[in-house]
Amino acid sequence: MVKLLQVDFDFTGPFGEEMAEKLAGLAESINSEPGFIWKIWTESRKDQLAGGIYLFEDEESANAYFKMHSARLKEMGINEVRGQIFDVNIPLSTITKGPVD
Amino acid sequence: MVKLLQVDFDFTGPFGEEMAEKLAGLAESINSEPGFIWKIWTESRKDQLAGGIYLFEDEESANAYFKMHSARLKEMGINEVRGQIFDVNIPLSTITKGPVD
Repeated sequence: MVKLLQVDFDFTGPFGEEMAEKLAGLAESINSEPGFIWKIWTESRKDQLAGGIYLFEDEESANAYFKMHSARLKEMGINEVRGQIFDVNIPLSTITKGPVD
Repeated sequence: MVKLLQVDFDFTGPFGEEMAEKLAGLAESINSEPGFIWKIWTESRKDQLAGGIYLFEDEESANAYFKMHSARLKEMGINEVRGQIFDVNIPLSTITKGPVD
């Protein structure tokens, strides 16, 4: 059953196009992570935050990714990463056109 | 420009199919909210949480929805709702197959 991983952390930039240029290679690599389905990249210059919403095929792959990703962010100097794995309520998400596959 | 609204709150249930039966009508109504594009319904029985990931057409509609939704949750006895509006990094999300339209 698919799982949604919600991640965010304090971040001072770069944002927007500058971030996209720096992290395009990393983004490509995420497509190869086990169980990965998609990621929306979230950011807020105003609130100095960044993060992502991910869909994974199962809990095991979501957990493994978050563990790896937190360690990678730590190497980039980001020590506190908020992460939460959720079940997706499929019948309700289907009604509201949620992209859950 | 689209905005992503990330919402979660402490929740004791109902979850899953029982929640879906109770809230199907509410879900239908959300499709008519101004600027609404889609919602994924998130829940965690294990961590006693519920929430949603929403895509809106712009910041104004995301803000208005969150204000209304927080008030509605308050009427249901849920006083503390965490909500954050994010920009979406479109180039990176496109690489990682994120459903951003």
